[in-house]
Amino acid sequence: MGQKNIMEYETVDIDVEKKELVIIDQTKLPGTTEILRLSTAKEIWDAIYLLQVRGAPAIGVSAAFGIYILATQIEAPDFDTFYVEFAKQRDYLDSSRPTAVNLSWALKRMDAVCVANKDKYKEELLDSLLKEAIAIKEEDTWVCKRIGEYGLELVKPGDGILTHCNAGQLATSKYGTATAPIYLGQERGYNFRVFADETRPLLQGARLTAYELHSSGVDVTLICDNMSAMVMKNGWVNAVFVGCDRVTANGDTANKIGTSVVATVAKRYGVPFYVCAPTSTIDMSLESGDQIPIEERKPEEVTEMWYKERMAPVGVKVFNPAFDVTDNDLIAGIVTEFGVARAPYTESLKEIFKKKEEAKQ
Amino acid sequence: MGQKNIMEYETVDIDVEKKELVIIDQTKLPGTTEILRLSTAKEIWDAIYLLQVRGAPAIGVSAAFGIYILATQIEAPDFDTFYVEFAKQRDYLDSSRPTAVNLSWALKRMDAVCVANKDKYKEELLDSLLKEAIAIKEEDTWVCKRIGEYGLELVKPGDGILTHCNAGQLATSKYGTATAPIYLGQERGYNFRVFADETRPLLQGARLTAYELHSSGVDVTLICDNMSAMVMKNGWVNAVFVGCDRVTANGDTANKIGTSVVATVAKRYGVPFYVCAPTSTIDMSLESGDQIPIEERKPEEVTEMWYKERMAPVGVKVFNPAFDVTDNDLIAGIVTEFGVARAPYTESLKEIFKKKEEAKQ
Repeated sequence: MGQKNIMEYETVDIDVEKKELVIIDQTKLPGTTEILRLSTAKEIWDAIYLLQVRGAPAIGVSAAFGIYILATQIEAPDFDTFYVEFAKQRDYLDSSRPTAVNLSWALKRMDAVCVANKDKYKEELLDSLLKEAIAIKEEDTWVCKRIGEYGLELVKPGDGILTHCNAGQLATSKYGTATAPIYLGQERGYNFRVFADETRPLLQGARLTAYELHSSGVDVTLICDNMSAMVMKNGWVNAVFVGCDRVTANGDTANKIGTSVVATVAKRYGVPFYVCAPTSTIDMSLESGDQIPIEERKPEEVTEMWYKERMAPVGVKVFNPAFDVTDNDLIAGIVTEFGVARAPYTESLKEIFKKKEEAKQ
Repeated sequence: MGQKNIMEYETVDIDVEKKELVIIDQTKLPGTTEILRLSTAKEIWDAIYLLQVRGAPAIGVSAAFGIYILATQIEAPDFDTFYVEFAKQRDYLDSSRPTAVNLSWALKRMDAVCVANKDKYKEELLDSLLKEAIAIKEEDTWVCKRIGEYGLELVKPGDGILTHCNAGQLATSKYGTATAPIYLGQERGYNFRVFADETRPLLQGARLTAYELHSSGVDVTLICDNMSAMVMKNGWVNAVFVGCDRVTANGDTANKIGTSVVATVAKRYGVPFYVCAPTSTIDMSLESGDQIPIEERKPEEVTEMWYKERMAPVGVKVFNPAFDVTDNDLIAGIVTEFGVARAPYTESLKEIFKKKEEAKQ
């Protein structure tokens, strides 16, 4: 298994026949490529909570497949009874992680399809749910590619690009968000030099981003999170691309802890800092970043090096927020599938959603 | 061994009878407290290179004891022959780490004593060398305490203090530099809340700073390096204190990699950033930080979690600078044993050295 290039796997998939969610266990990368097949609510919840599948778009797709799979297991005499159970499972999956909005966004889409088909036979209802989940996944690939095209216009061949955490193929259905310009550039001979922050505590940058870019032949250099100032001061970075878990109406952006540090450092060195955001991660119902719930995770992620050996004194307090909010003034642009929003974001993000509405027509 | 409080050990000491350098192996903390007894040039060089002893002041003391011990081993018929070998060992120890200036500063002091006693009998010469090494250690304790007093004037009881890497007791003979205000405040009931950056890749913050502060009953919270912006944005930090490896005449400061990131973030959130610098770490012969040699260390420090398990793909490039330079405009003050220097540092640091000269008289 470990010999196959990671890029040949689907990050998130469904086995339609067996009704199983099929994912790569990302906690075991890069050492081991283990495919998980999940079918119970607890398994799917755990996979999201434990970051076996992670990245806002991939979580959304997993939740969509997941709620479909759970729906097929519901035994009910009528729709109302069915829907009580469906809603229960929907809320349960929704509780697995609080910060990324794609999770509830995808579950809401699935819920809407469920309700819209309340008068249909069970088989037809389930079929509609499956189609919606597949559509969410296919849209994700399309969205990432569009983000890649818009992002590519912001850089030039030979540029140095820094990224934080993993907003790569492993965080999405394909291409990634922050990595989409890098992959498209790679196809077109742009020869980017990429710097990947290792991203403590769970090292998604070292384990996932460096891994998938290196596997794809991209020139990638791994650095610790605290080396960003040095590489920027050295003039090695022309642009920063990061993903996001939730963008609010004013452009404030929650993303992996440390993102706002990178943005602050980029501002000092005059390096444009771009957020790659599918519109599904833009939450226009929240005015600003201080309204985003920030998940705190357990101290052992920090104190035990990859759960093997303790690297901090027993009993020491630990603060372990999984995300932080980057204020909109640090963001040079928000790259969506409908173009690049620029400050003031309260205006430009509305324009993006207008374009999205127009595209639907 | 492991049960004794780390604070009861001397970070660097000499066994005068056995002529051995006695240090705590800091690479094994906090899990194991192992005392090393070193007497060969290779052992002492390795101890510094491998960070078994680290921290600019502690490296200086180790080098002073080390060159004395090596001097006792020289067999020579006359001073000139003796001095050729002495200079060879001096240069060898000096080559162990390039960034911290204390190493060469301490060796220069020892060299001056050696040359000044060239007409003495061997026993008297060696005795003078030992006295000088002991003086360097004793001065270090005095210097740290003075830095603590000046630093304490910059904060108030109940303040939140953030520190990066370890500029604690384990980096010096006693008190530490950046931790000196914390320890003095602790003695005086200041009840600081301290945030310790874990400091990748070698985790001196998690393993050493969190350890020694926690052992001493200080309220310390461990964070990953990339969480500094979040704790500052939350209003939890009133001041940053860090140590340094070399300060240049204009106030630019080389310190553990990531220090300039903390300084940049502190600037954004209006948190004063203080460098605690014994005058022995101030190198007035260099005009600015870009003249400081920055040590690069091996990739495995980043790719292998504590040398046990590989957490990054095989073959990926790694950039692993051990230090970075914090530009003087990010520094609110440089706290020395002769007072706090403020911008413009080209003037204020000269004043500090004037005070030092006056104190000698």
